[in-house]
Amino acid sequence: MKPVILLQTDFSLTWGAVASVKGVIKQVDPTLEIEDLCHDIKKFDPWEASLSLGTVVPYWPAGTIVVSVVDPGVGTDRKACVALLQNGTYVITPDNGTLTHLKYGIGIKAVRELDPSIRFDAGEEVSVFHGRDIFGYAAALLASGQKTFESLGVEYPVEEIRECEEYGLRPILGDLSASGFVMTGLKHFGGIQFNITNEEWKQCGFTEGQSVHVVITHEGKTMFDRDVHFERSFGFVPEGDPVLYCGSSLYLCLDLNCDNFMEKYGIDMGKDWRVSFEAYED
Amino acid sequence: MKPVILLQTDFSLTWGAVASVKGVIKQVDPTLEIEDLCHDIKKFDPWEASLSLGTVVPYWPAGTIVVSVVDPGVGTDRKACVALLQNGTYVITPDNGTLTHLKYGIGIKAVRELDPSIRFDAGEEVSVFHGRDIFGYAAALLASGQKTFESLGVEYPVEEIRECEEYGLRPILGDLSASGFVMTGLKHFGGIQFNITNEEWKQCGFTEGQSVHVVITHEGKTMFDRDVHFERSFGFVPEGDPVLYCGSSLYLCLDLNCDNFMEKYGIDMGKDWRVSFEAYED
Amino acid sequence: MKPVILLQTDFSLTWGAVASVKGVIKQVDPTLEIEDLCHDIKKFDPWEASLSLGTVVPYWPAGTIVVSVVDPGVGTDRKACVALLQNGTYVITPDNGTLTHLKYGIGIKAVRELDPSIRFDAGEEVSVFHGRDIFGYAAALLASGQKTFESLGVEYPVEEIRECEEYGLRPILGDLSASGFVMTGLKHFGGIQFNITNEEWKQCGFTEGQSVHVVITHEGKTMFDRDVHFERSFGFVPEGDPVLYCGSSLYLCLDLNCDNFMEKYGIDMGKDWRVSFEAYED
Repeated sequence: MKPVILLQTDFSLTWGAVASVKGVIKQVDPTLEIEDLCHDIKKFDPWEASLSLGTVVPYWPAGTIVVSVVDPGVGTDRKACVALLQNGTYVITPDNGTLTHLKYGIGIKAVRELDPSIRFDAGEEVSVFHGRDIFGYAAALLASGQKTFESLGVEYPVEEIRECEEYGLRPILGDLSASGFVMTGLKHFGGIQFNITNEEWKQCGFTEGQSVHVVITHEGKTMFDRDVHFERSFGFVPEGDPVLYCGSSLYLCLDLNCDNFMEKYGIDMGKDWRVSFEAYED
Repeated sequence: MKPVILLQTDFSLTWGAVASVKGVIKQVDPTLEIEDLCHDIKKFDPWEASLSLGTVVPYWPAGTIVVSVVDPGVGTDRKACVALLQNGTYVITPDNGTLTHLKYGIGIKAVRELDPSIRFDAGEEVSVFHGRDIFGYAAALLASGQKTFESLGVEYPVEEIRECEEYGLRPILGDLSASGFVMTGLKHFGGIQFNITNEEWKQCGFTEGQSVHVVITHEGKTMFDRDVHFERSFGFVPEGDPVLYCGSSLYLCLDLNCDNFMEKYGIDMGKDWRVSFEAYED
Repeated sequence: MKPVILLQTDFSLTWGAVASVKGVIKQVDPTLEIEDLCHDIKKFDPWEASLSLGTVVPYWPAGTIVVSVVDPGVGTDRKACVALLQNGTYVITPDNGTLTHLKYGIGIKAVRELDPSIRFDAGEEVSVFHGRDIFGYAAALLASGQKTFESLGVEYPVEEIRECEEYGLRPILGDLSASGFVMTGLKHFGGIQFNITNEEWKQCGFTEGQSVHVVITHEGKTMFDRDVHFERSFGFVPEGDPVLYCGSSLYLCLDLNCDNFMEKYGIDMGKDWRVSFEAYED
């Protein structure tokens, strides 16, 4: 059975761009199965692309061929690459930070720069649609067995893979205290995720049912300052109340039960949105 | 041939949550086919989830395995269940009202509470992503044949399935007159649907081409009051004009031809949006 | 192997309409594969439907069965048709202008009016959901081999296929000068596309790296007036700067590098948004 191709882009589904990528894949091999990871990654933002891959790829079968095209540098000289993860999954993407979370998560075994000869012949010289003509096309060649990993390009050191600088900002962890920043917002539901893993959080000694003092600041201004319960899930606090919980993406989350935290408190994401947590022994 | 898994959620497609559910299904059995019903159900609203299932599921082949995750009580003690419909289709969902329209439509033959042992091992104890770790996972076990309906959990009486209270509000039907409420809005096009079936409407004696006096009120305030033609379809009235028609979802609809009724008249949905219809013999 | 069915609509994915179309296709033949082209075509706008087909269909394998349902006249007497393109691809659509770009692009070999007997039996007389009951259903019959092209309806002359009038507005091309209108906006990224093909543009003598004077007017008012570089891609100009480039849809495009041109300059699309280009020999 051929591996599934899993697509992530910042193209959105509001026009036919994603469908053009899929059409080229089907031209290479009509039996290939294509699934969507997400096409609404924040435009031009490899950090969000990386977070999304780090959250979702671990749940897909080993050997899946992932394509991620969030590519502010399309047409310039950033590398186009294919990475082989430690679990046998492949990721084809511009090497622009998109691989950061996977590098420190599942881990990357080897990476190759896509050979410039790998390019779908769209019949005319066009330089802007690498998602279709390079990344999707290379994925189809690999998934169909027409190319091996080795034949897709020249290897380069995993250490040279570009990383998002935000990743280097580690949280400060203490005894019943922690601080970090708002790593991402779960746009649709309005919850936020901190750069603190569930595991790190628990190592600080926080326990379910506990009340935690949470302060969020932005450029020196306090945006949120109150005690919040740390619970297993939203449903353990009254509707509309805030709740801290260990997120399914394996990072600590803050949300309102059945309401939108980011909208209600005017909170956004990024390294300038600082957070601190503190609790006291019962 | 294995049955298709048909997914409905309120997760939206703006992040990778739906893709994580699909990944777990593919881990159970990579040959399973997964299709999307809708991922933009109103957040935390089992009533809209129920309406959507009642509208779409009848058009899918008998034996389809439907998953619906609109779950304000995630992580609390509401039941997780699998229902077998009269036509052989399965629905895996929190038992929170989501099954209301199917119960009174296709009908439910039997229902079982999912056994707590049915849980995808995500490697860490996380309590918030039941769509991925319980509902999607159970669907994959059933679709792949690894579990039978009987082995998914203990049966309980169909009468105990939770229903949305709105469903109990029946319309008042007369001779060339009817009244009820705005059951739902078709958000994208802006039309509305009443809690009056096409069949009930025709039994009141309304006929195509007829002019009907329509009054919509909200908390005592009249929001819309005019004569509207009842026609076979939008295209039978001039562009921008209102039209009543028998909806493809089998409920009576009111819309503007090529315009947005809800936006133009400030109409919303819910049991507080009352409507009355009256016509006179020609 | 059966051909893929490729769906385009203006239904959006915010409710279950597209899923109902897919369900009926699966009822005809559960082995059929259905892919999405785009479901966010501008509502009731055959011009945008036509442009989208013209842009995407050339990248799909010959023999694909395309369904496009953007149908302001649903339920009235516009023709429902199936067109056979010169490359063997089929398009099933209301004949309302949707075929314009394919007619002048890939080319249409033959067209047939769908026989009124081809109609999914939804169990009740409903006249508004032709996407489900006629167009999707006919595609399933054709893709599954239950009907041939010839048996879908009576042939009529390709010359009688309805065309969008905008298509007749040809650009004026000169030596290092051109003028036309804003054919479409790429909503998500905010770039615009002119009714000037990449080939026509190059025939005017413009070369990469060149500075071009661009003026966009709307009803006599100048909306944009400045020199813009013509480059291979966004990444060749500084972030936030405008750039002209040969689009992947084979039409000339204007965009901002990593910003939204339409929002920033208040530009919309349509034949009243005129543009002129002029450059000087170096």
